[in-house]
Amino acid sequence: MLLKYSGKIIYSIIILAVGFVLLKFSNKMLEKWKNREKSSVIPFNQKRIDTLAALFKSIVKYSIYFIMIVLILENFNVSIKTILAVAGIGGLAIGFGAQSLIRDVIAGLFLIIEDQLSVGDYVTIDGRSGIVKEMGIKTIKIQDYNGSVHIIPNGSIGAITNWSRHNSKAIVDVKLNTKMSYDEVSQKLKEVFEEIEKEFEDDIVTPPQILGIVDTNWIEYTLRIVTETKPLKHWDVEREMRKKIIEKLFLN
Amino acid sequence: MLLKYSGKIIYSIIILAVGFVLLKFSNKMLEKWKNREKSSVIPFNQKRIDTLAALFKSIVKYSIYFIMIVLILENFNVSIKTILAVAGIGGLAIGFGAQSLIRDVIAGLFLIIEDQLSVGDYVTIDGRSGIVKEMGIKTIKIQDYNGSVHIIPNGSIGAITNWSRHNSKAIVDVKLNTKMSYDEVSQKLKEVFEEIEKEFEDDIVTPPQILGIVDTNWIEYTLRIVTETKPLKHWDVEREMRKKIIEKLFLN
Amino acid sequence: MLLKYSGKIIYSIIILAVGFVLLKFSNKMLEKWKNREKSSVIPFNQKRIDTLAALFKSIVKYSIYFIMIVLILENFNVSIKTILAVAGIGGLAIGFGAQSLIRDVIAGLFLIIEDQLSVGDYVTIDGRSGIVKEMGIKTIKIQDYNGSVHIIPNGSIGAITNWSRHNSKAIVDVKLNTKMSYDEVSQKLKEVFEEIEKEFEDDIVTPPQILGIVDTNWIEYTLRIVTETKPLKHWDVEREMRKKIIEKLFLN
Amino acid sequence: MLLKYSGKIIYSIIILAVGFVLLKFSNKMLEKWKNREKSSVIPFNQKRIDTLAALFKSIVKYSIYFIMIVLILENFNVSIKTILAVAGIGGLAIGFGAQSLIRDVIAGLFLIIEDQLSVGDYVTIDGRSGIVKEMGIKTIKIQDYNGSVHIIPNGSIGAITNWSRHNSKAIVDVKLNTKMSYDEVSQKLKEVFEEIEKEFEDDIVTPPQILGIVDTNWIEYTLRIVTETKPLKHWDVEREMRKKIIEKLFLN
Amino acid sequence: MLLKYSGKIIYSIIILAVGFVLLKFSNKMLEKWKNREKSSVIPFNQKRIDTLAALFKSIVKYSIYFIMIVLILENFNVSIKTILAVAGIGGLAIGFGAQSLIRDVIAGLFLIIEDQLSVGDYVTIDGRSGIVKEMGIKTIKIQDYNGSVHIIPNGSIGAITNWSRHNSKAIVDVKLNTKMSYDEVSQKLKEVFEEIEKEFEDDIVTPPQILGIVDTNWIEYTLRIVTETKPLKHWDVEREMRKKIIEKLFLN
Amino acid sequence: MLLKYSGKIIYSIIILAVGFVLLKFSNKMLEKWKNREKSSVIPFNQKRIDTLAALFKSIVKYSIYFIMIVLILENFNVSIKTILAVAGIGGLAIGFGAQSLIRDVIAGLFLIIEDQLSVGDYVTIDGRSGIVKEMGIKTIKIQDYNGSVHIIPNGSIGAITNWSRHNSKAIVDVKLNTKMSYDEVSQKLKEVFEEIEKEFEDDIVTPPQILGIVDTNWIEYTLRIVTETKPLKHWDVEREMRKKIIEKLFLN
Amino acid sequence: MLLKYSGKIIYSIIILAVGFVLLKFSNKMLEKWKNREKSSVIPFNQKRIDTLAALFKSIVKYSIYFIMIVLILENFNVSIKTILAVAGIGGLAIGFGAQSLIRDVIAGLFLIIEDQLSVGDYVTIDGRSGIVKEMGIKTIKIQDYNGSVHIIPNGSIGAITNWSRHNSKAIVDVKLNTKMSYDEVSQKLKEVFEEIEKEFEDDIVTPPQILGIVDTNWIEYTLRIVTETKPLKHWDVEREMRKKIIEKLFLN
Repeated sequence: MLLKYSGKIIYSIIILAVGFVLLKFSNKMLEKWKNREKSSVIPFNQKRIDTLAALFKSIVKYSIYFIMIVLILENFNVSIKTILAVAGIGGLAIGFGAQSLIRDVIAGLFLIIEDQLSVGDYVTIDGRSGIVKEMGIKTIKIQDYNGSVHIIPNGSIGAITNWSRHNSKAIVDVKLNTKMSYDEVSQKLKEVFEEIEKEFEDDIVTPPQILGIVDTNWIEYTLRIVTETKPLKHWDVEREMRKKIIEKLFLN
Repeated sequence: MLLKYSGKIIYSIIILAVGFVLLKFSNKMLEKWKNREKSSVIPFNQKRIDTLAALFKSIVKYSIYFIMIVLILENFNVSIKTILAVAGIGGLAIGFGAQSLIRDVIAGLFLIIEDQLSVGDYVTIDGRSGIVKEMGIKTIKIQDYNGSVHIIPNGSIGAITNWSRHNSKAIVDVKLNTKMSYDEVSQKLKEVFEEIEKEFEDDIVTPPQILGIVDTNWIEYTLRIVTETKPLKHWDVEREMRKKIIEKLFLN
Repeated sequence: MLLKYSGKIIYSIIILAVGFVLLKFSNKMLEKWKNREKSSVIPFNQKRIDTLAALFKSIVKYSIYFIMIVLILENFNVSIKTILAVAGIGGLAIGFGAQSLIRDVIAGLFLIIEDQLSVGDYVTIDGRSGIVKEMGIKTIKIQDYNGSVHIIPNGSIGAITNWSRHNSKAIVDVKLNTKMSYDEVSQKLKEVFEEIEKEFEDDIVTPPQILGIVDTNWIEYTLRIVTETKPLKHWDVEREMRKKIIEKLFLN
Repeated sequence: MLLKYSGKIIYSIIILAVGFVLLKFSNKMLEKWKNREKSSVIPFNQKRIDTLAALFKSIVKYSIYFIMIVLILENFNVSIKTILAVAGIGGLAIGFGAQSLIRDVIAGLFLIIEDQLSVGDYVTIDGRSGIVKEMGIKTIKIQDYNGSVHIIPNGSIGAITNWSRHNSKAIVDVKLNTKMSYDEVSQKLKEVFEEIEKEFEDDIVTPPQILGIVDTNWIEYTLRIVTETKPLKHWDVEREMRKKIIEKLFLN
Repeated sequence: MLLKYSGKIIYSIIILAVGFVLLKFSNKMLEKWKNREKSSVIPFNQKRIDTLAALFKSIVKYSIYFIMIVLILENFNVSIKTILAVAGIGGLAIGFGAQSLIRDVIAGLFLIIEDQLSVGDYVTIDGRSGIVKEMGIKTIKIQDYNGSVHIIPNGSIGAITNWSRHNSKAIVDVKLNTKMSYDEVSQKLKEVFEEIEKEFEDDIVTPPQILGIVDTNWIEYTLRIVTETKPLKHWDVEREMRKKIIEKLFLN
Repeated sequence: MLLKYSGKIIYSIIILAVGFVLLKFSNKMLEKWKNREKSSVIPFNQKRIDTLAALFKSIVKYSIYFIMIVLILENFNVSIKTILAVAGIGGLAIGFGAQSLIRDVIAGLFLIIEDQLSVGDYVTIDGRSGIVKEMGIKTIKIQDYNGSVHIIPNGSIGAITNWSRHNSKAIVDVKLNTKMSYDEVSQKLKEVFEEIEKEFEDDIVTPPQILGIVDTNWIEYTLRIVTETKPLKHWDVEREMRKKIIEKLFLN
Repeated sequence: MLLKYSGKIIYSIIILAVGFVLLKFSNKMLEKWKNREKSSVIPFNQKRIDTLAALFKSIVKYSIYFIMIVLILENFNVSIKTILAVAGIGGLAIGFGAQSLIRDVIAGLFLIIEDQLSVGDYVTIDGRSGIVKEMGIKTIKIQDYNGSVHIIPNGSIGAITNWSRHNSKAIVDVKLNTKMSYDEVSQKLKEVFEEIEKEFEDDIVTPPQILGIVDTNWIEYTLRIVTETKPLKHWDVEREMRKKIIEKLFLN
């Protein structure tokens, strides 16, 4: 019997040894990959590499620990299966309850890997708009214009609208009385456009122009003006445009 | 015992050999299919072929790897089943959490295969409209007219409305006072129609005509004008039509 | 051992032989059924027969293939069960993810079999209206009046409203001032009805008549006029009716 | 071995024989029940009996077939369990996908058995109103007043509103200016009521009467008039009542 | 072998005998309980006792039948487990589909047992109001004031609002111009209150009084009057109150 | 064999004996705990103790019964597992159906234990407000101000708003014409505040004050007045405040 | 046999001994960790440490108890598995029912650990705003401005909006008639800004400025004024700003 146990103990030690060697090895590999990525020509986002490295590290670590424990216990004939069976129902219940947690983490990983939005972007998620302040593994933090911070679980994010990746369009709708002649109005607007173009020289990509009349009835009609601007510059252009239009068209 | 182990090792090597041969073979087959498809008379969409080929390649690769590992481990009597049982509950939990990921990928594959929409189409998905910029395996990117980009998970896409596959219809509703005689109005509209037809010669498929009166009460009635145009040209026609109607009907 | 293997190989060949004979046989049966159906007195919808035949063919084919592979592998003692157990968790996850796909296909089959709507019908599904362009096994395509195409997954179709199977009713609501005498108005409307009846002789099933007053307050009351027409002709009748009512009642 | 096989074959034949005798027997029983039901004093709905009989017939038939096949295969040691295990995952997936189908059928059975609504009733289901045209095992068809047909899956039916089983109530709300004396108005309404009672002698169960004032502010008040009528006759009464009220109260 | 079978047959007969004795016994017990309950001093609702008795009877009956069949089949070594395994997938699918049915029945049992609402009560369930006409094991039927019958599945009932168990409150909101003095108005209302109190002597629990001003702006203010009445009498009081207020405050 | 059975019977008797002793013992323990709790210095809510005691009693009782039956049956080799396997599918189905029942009970227990709301509190649950009349193990009953009783299943309760635990705030918004000077208005309001403070001396915690202007445009602006009161006294204060404001500001 | 039992008893005692030693040890470890954390340089939130310590303590305690009981029972051959199998179905049902409870607890743990919001913060959760009063393991309590307390289950919390972590922005929109000159208005506003800046010296981070015109039509235009303030000070600034604007712009 001593023999039997000594054999088991030796076997356990071997398992432990192999496990720790594997752990060391995988960590080194990861470190190498990290360095290679960071010093590559077109470097990945720094933060993303760190996140991924830390993630894989802990996955590998806990997997190896877990397998080692199971193998050693089995070796000593501890009835893992019974304990598991007993714990199973509770575990299943917890599993159901923890669903949303896991969903958040998986979704969070993909958000970080896929580069759909990055810190500093102006985004709209499920009706909440703001600048991305922090992209965590479980939640994303967005700072609204009014200063409040929206903390959104990653798993509940459906469609994302990102405003910072392409040029924006400043769209100004002007409601006019049907008594106001279109030609006269468009003449005055042209002057406004020229001023706007000068003022926002750096931000405007395509100069403002009248898109046309988008709605009409026998009392008023709506004129739409469109200007392509650098990302997120459209609000400035829109506000200035409205100010100038009021001065030219309505005040005198 | 040496014999027993050597037999197992030989068996493992055979498994590995067969596996790699199968892998090579399947890759070649795929390559052939790809080439045949691309050089066929009515060629498939280039991108779709690449996507499918890459997809099948990785499915075949991981399947063969997986079966090889399982067979070899079994061969050495490593108790896979116990580890699996232990890992099962966690795995199930992850499985539930990863549902939406899998759903996205499956839906994405069908979007690419089925050709319901392609890059460059103008589509509406769940109230978000724009031009399809990118069709990924997990998300679809749509650029809105205002410049923002909607990133929509494929799995959450229900009904799709595609505007780029058939001729569009320019529909202009004109609200008129019941004091304005229908005959007189229709006379003036005919002049508008002629001008429009000339101006948009290339875009108009069926010339504009009065569909009829779609709503009425004792104060005003609504006249509907319909023009069939080439895909997505209807906005231009609608805007120009409205401008001309204002000039003819309301300004003098 | 050679004997043992040769026996297994012979067994496998028998399985293969039986399988392919069954396959051939079932295909012939299906072909026969198809021909019989198509040449029957009251023939089924041609397309539906083809769909069903193709469907059963592939179901039978893959079922036989699948059973043959399992039986042969079992014959060679390949541990299918272990592989299955391993693959099971992933498979379950995929199963959950693929739910919507399967639901679409099942719903699609029933749509084709049940004849609730056919290509060319004008239908409303979940707020989207249009003419059915294509009924696929996974999606249905509906072309809206404005030219856009709605692609709706079959599985997400709940209640369907079909406008093409029965006579339609043209319903015109006229809002009148309480100062306008009912008798006088109904007299004038009768003249309108006669004109309409003549004009739409072929489309009208039951001539127009005043249904009654459906809403009232101390300022205005609403008169409803109803005409039964051939399917989908009600819009034409409604628009013409409104035009004539404006001319008779409001313009002079 | 011949002996062994002959025994198995005999056993199989016995199974088949017993199965077909059971099948015949059950069919006869069903036929008897059907005839008894149909010729009973207070006969069930004819259609319902046929539906139920056909249903039970096919359930019994397929159950017996299924058990026979399983027993014979087991008899020949065909490893059903393995095939089942393999097929199980797919089957589960299909099971999930087919849920809505099964739900429809179960709900449909109860709709037919429970007599909550019958063909010809005017009902409202989930905001869709109309006359029940057809009650199928999977869907119910309702024809709207405007001629369109709503096809609703039985499983998605929640609360049903049936208008054809009890007397209806014609409810007319009249908005009046606070300058109009209540006594004077009620005097005039009494004349209207008498005319209505004469005109709809057959349809009215309880003569019209003023329920009272259901809303008021310093500009107008709302008078409610209620009449109990035979089922679905309330619309006719309401419309005629409104016409007469306009003539008496507002026109002179 | 004869011996073996005769033993099995004897065993089966014993099972059957024991089963039927148990059945008889349980029925008698139930009958006794029923009689005792019905003749008790504070008798339960008659209908509820019958429902419960019938329910338990059938549960006991089918349970005993089921156990008897299983035990006998097992006795003859019929492989129930295999059949069950085969039938299991289908059964699971049906189980999912039948969920809503079971949910309805369970909810129905609790509705009957718990006495939250009884036939004749005026209730509001999910926006549908009316008098409870029938409380079934699967649905509840509510007759709306307009005569239509709402048939609601018990399982879909969430919150219930019952109006028949406590005194109601007649609440009349009067909108007044800010030009009308509060003191003068309250003086006139006091006269109205006295008349109302006399008229509804039997129905009023607490005489009407001015609760106060519940809304105000610089044009009008809203006065609330509250009267506690016997259950469901509040509508009559409200309507009469409004009539009298119009006469006193607005007409002269 | 006699010996074998006598042994089994003796074993069963022992099981029964041990079971009943345990039952007695647990009941006594519970009784003791109950008494100790009730006579403790800061006594728990009386009702809560009774509920918990009754609950634990029945849980213990049924658990002991259940284990005793299983052990005895096992002792006599009755194949419980088979019956269970057979009953399992149905049981699972019932389990799904009974989910909402169990959810209600669990939620109910926590409502009673956690003291989030108690009988007599004024609460708002899912848009339904009223005074808590009864907190059952399955439903909660809330009496609305208008006398109707809301019966809400505990399991469907999400967020609860409790108005009875802290001081309330009387908030009165007054809309004023931009022609009315702020200083003059605030002078008059101060007089109102003094009167209110005297009148509601006992209920007011912080005297009323002008919070400021919460909305404005070029026609009117909205002034907000806030007063902290004892719980639920804010309505009285609000109504009196409005009355006084009308008298001071608008009537003269 | 005596030997056998004595062996088992000794084994049980060893299990118990090991268990309690482990328990003691883990508790000490936890205590140490707690002290170390609390006396560290940048101390964690005091409350969070206590919560976590108590939590881990009870998890460890119950896990050790549970494993000890299972091991001892197994030791005496009590058929745990059978009892478990029997109890399994009920347990599963309870598991489903208890889902929301577990979800609440898991979510609650993360709320406490993650420091997304702390007691005293002003937050908005699912449309309910207020100051966080208490963060429990199952619910969070938020006190609304009007004094009522919202009790929200942690598991139902989706996106959180926290107003107390960053500077707020006072945003005042002023609607102006198009007749009012922009230059004149902006001149007057500048005076207002100066006064505001002096008055709120301590609260204002960035002085108020005109952001621009955010909406316009031919009747009125909307001017937006923005001021960055310390967290939650924006309401005070907004209200004072509105008061001053009314005095300067509209009153004279």
